[in-house]
Amino acid sequence: MELLKERIRKDGVMKPGHVLKVDNFLNHQMDIGLFNEIGKEFKRRFADVKVDKILTIEASGIGIAAIVAQYFECPVVFAKKSQSINLDGTMLSTQIESFTHKRKYEVIVASRFLSPGENILVIDDFLANGCAAMGLVHLIEAAHANLAGIGIVIEKGFQQGGVLLREKGYRVESLAIVEEMDPETQTITFRE
Amino acid sequence: MELLKERIRKDGVMKPGHVLKVDNFLNHQMDIGLFNEIGKEFKRRFADVKVDKILTIEASGIGIAAIVAQYFECPVVFAKKSQSINLDGTMLSTQIESFTHKRKYEVIVASRFLSPGENILVIDDFLANGCAAMGLVHLIEAAHANLAGIGIVIEKGFQQGGVLLREKGYRVESLAIVEEMDPETQTITFRE
Repeated sequence: MELLKERIRKDGVMKPGHVLKVDNFLNHQMDIGLFNEIGKEFKRRFADVKVDKILTIEASGIGIAAIVAQYFECPVVFAKKSQSINLDGTMLSTQIESFTHKRKYEVIVASRFLSPGENILVIDDFLANGCAAMGLVHLIEAAHANLAGIGIVIEKGFQQGGVLLREKGYRVESLAIVEEMDPETQTITFRE
Repeated sequence: MELLKERIRKDGVMKPGHVLKVDNFLNHQMDIGLFNEIGKEFKRRFADVKVDKILTIEASGIGIAAIVAQYFECPVVFAKKSQSINLDGTMLSTQIESFTHKRKYEVIVASRFLSPGENILVIDDFLANGCAAMGLVHLIEAAHANLAGIGIVIEKGFQQGGVLLREKGYRVESLAIVEEMDPETQTITFRE
């Protein structure tokens, strides 16, 4: 998605340790106009797929998923990272290891929001080591729902997540795949 | 907002301790069609106000704010509850005491996303004791930006947050104000 790549080139900041900061438009400040273009592009790529619901994970996936859902005309469920007193009923849970935060955490979703046979599209802002996406897939499997596909805004192609998920046969659509990035020169190369 | 009140009556679950669960459509599973109606209603109520940016707080405010922003044609910034290695530069921070989680936590926003003189609309899902909203107002004041108003989806009118904020002269627009709720009979009364 050329518009997205241009925006990453313009506003993305590369840091040592494979960190790509896009908090100016994607995951701290959110450019809703761009999110709508992202929504249209996911709809174009998943046009042949039946999507009953979108599943994402708090916090940075939520805004993107909400806008994207308008193009699939479906609700969004977001998996939560911490137990709340307001959660009850049967919960599905899985463990996820965060690349950004270097720690493991429990992710939960109320089982009544993922039903057997439902077609679930996973949407997230980043794909790096694939742990968040795999965690969401585990939740979908635990609910006996169907994975319709995985839509990622930015994939770090130099980390193993994309390979891992595609080897398992999952359909992954990433709108920008970073092949290489150099914090010293602030240059970034995308996969063609 | 009648559509919202009807939905709360239909799908809201009251629990002891002033807990109103609306996770079926508002803050775990998200009904994006309803969010669009909420966005239209906030735009109608704040039609006379200049809004340059919407400020909300993770996690449950994000989806609502993203959809609402489409009606104000502005970006959204969400305050974060935990330090990330990807945050740097100058941060504005404040402490918030959570009604739901019964604890204090630090909330931060990158200062470059709230500029002096900008008109900021606060959007959140719930108003109870007012601590989250006050925290966001503190961030806006610290940035020397202007508070355009506070838009709340559900206000618990029997808690002091609404009184507190209105006494300070802030313009608060709540789409549904709960006057009373009874977990035993599952009945709810809204303020007229």
